[in-house]
Amino acid sequence: MTPSATEIESPESRLSAAGLVLPKPAGAVANYVPWAISGSMIYTSGQLPWIDGLLLFKGKIGSDLTPQQGYDACKLSALNAIAQLKHAAGDLRRIKRIIRLEGVLNVAPGYTDHPKALNGASDLINDVFGAAGSHTRMIYTNPEMPLDCASLVVLWAEIRDA
Amino acid sequence: MTPSATEIESPESRLSAAGLVLPKPAGAVANYVPWAISGSMIYTSGQLPWIDGLLLFKGKIGSDLTPQQGYDACKLSALNAIAQLKHAAGDLRRIKRIIRLEGVLNVAPGYTDHPKALNGASDLINDVFGAAGSHTRMIYTNPEMPLDCASLVVLWAEIRDA
Amino acid sequence: MTPSATEIESPESRLSAAGLVLPKPAGAVANYVPWAISGSMIYTSGQLPWIDGLLLFKGKIGSDLTPQQGYDACKLSALNAIAQLKHAAGDLRRIKRIIRLEGVLNVAPGYTDHPKALNGASDLINDVFGAAGSHTRMIYTNPEMPLDCASLVVLWAEIRDA
Repeated sequence: MTPSATEIESPESRLSAAGLVLPKPAGAVANYVPWAISGSMIYTSGQLPWIDGLLLFKGKIGSDLTPQQGYDACKLSALNAIAQLKHAAGDLRRIKRIIRLEGVLNVAPGYTDHPKALNGASDLINDVFGAAGSHTRMIYTNPEMPLDCASLVVLWAEIRDA
Repeated sequence: MTPSATEIESPESRLSAAGLVLPKPAGAVANYVPWAISGSMIYTSGQLPWIDGLLLFKGKIGSDLTPQQGYDACKLSALNAIAQLKHAAGDLRRIKRIIRLEGVLNVAPGYTDHPKALNGASDLINDVFGAAGSHTRMIYTNPEMPLDCASLVVLWAEIRDA
Repeated sequence: MTPSATEIESPESRLSAAGLVLPKPAGAVANYVPWAISGSMIYTSGQLPWIDGLLLFKGKIGSDLTPQQGYDACKLSALNAIAQLKHAAGDLRRIKRIIRLEGVLNVAPGYTDHPKALNGASDLINDVFGAAGSHTRMIYTNPEMPLDCASLVVLWAEIRDA
């Protein structure tokens, strides 16, 4: 029995095909929530590069971390954001389009190649959502990050049948 | 005569019960406005921790300011943002939900405990709006802030009958 | 033959009257897009102060760049954002209102007069769109910027007949 086209093309199946597993979405913390829906849009809170509370990428890209680790940090932050979208939408096929990616990066003084690090998030989004992953983005660098994490990622996703 | 349930539960009455007075909303400055409504959402501009133009919290949290002062700065920035929401909506009971809190903080080098400072904004929002205060949030630190203020807060609020 | 009122008051005619030419909008880069429409809103990606790929303003306002150059950088970033809006909307008269301006600035340590630099973007938006240019704004400073650019600008624009 071969999978249907729908199964092949679902974001979940693309994640599996890439050997990726969505982290368990970080739950509501004391005083804010990981996502909210307003109208047809899901907005996530800032997502750290962690799995089950274990922060995998700490410190500054360009000194503590290599460019490749910066790329991987952004990819993992985005994977956590996708886990939040799935929690919010139930099924990632409900995502009509990723509208915006916001990435805040922790970089060493003088390191200006951070857009390549955020490509770790953009590439993942395009791989997982295909045409629906076509997104705008905004990049920031900040001098200090929560828990000294390497990256924070926010996603906005338009859903089909809000 | 006892107040009605509606009066008890209004955001305005919760503010009073907490002994808080909304600052006079800062008016339109020369070339931008303090809030705008699009569809069912009110978006504020960045709000400083001031009252009647007097900036109460200047400098960097973790050196010039204590953690508690950082918390209080974020609370006051959020109080100013709520004042803008009231100006925009007329009555805070029209707020269906606070969708997003954006907080930019002015912190000393190496100070990474700034999420606790932004809790000053989150706690206030939850106290004032109850279940409708359940919000996503994104945190930033910036090396230089307007007027060297300690915090800038933006709120997005969904309104009921836009 | 005199121009009609509509011609006089179109954003395109105001640009011409101010002697401004919209830069060719930077096309889609490898893995993200310069604008997206969701509902009735156009969101742009971050726009650099460049023309045809030539970055005109690099470095930090307050040391490498004068305050006036900071103003001009923000103006040029906003001009690029308006070029994206025109590409998205076809005709700038379809813009009902500019809802939000986001400006990230590259400033020298201790330089806190950056809101005046972002006025370069706000002033242009007001000049080009008139009453429809009345916008909220949020300002950031970042320690490192892509290509060491002086400014990044994002615009959100509500369109009339989405």
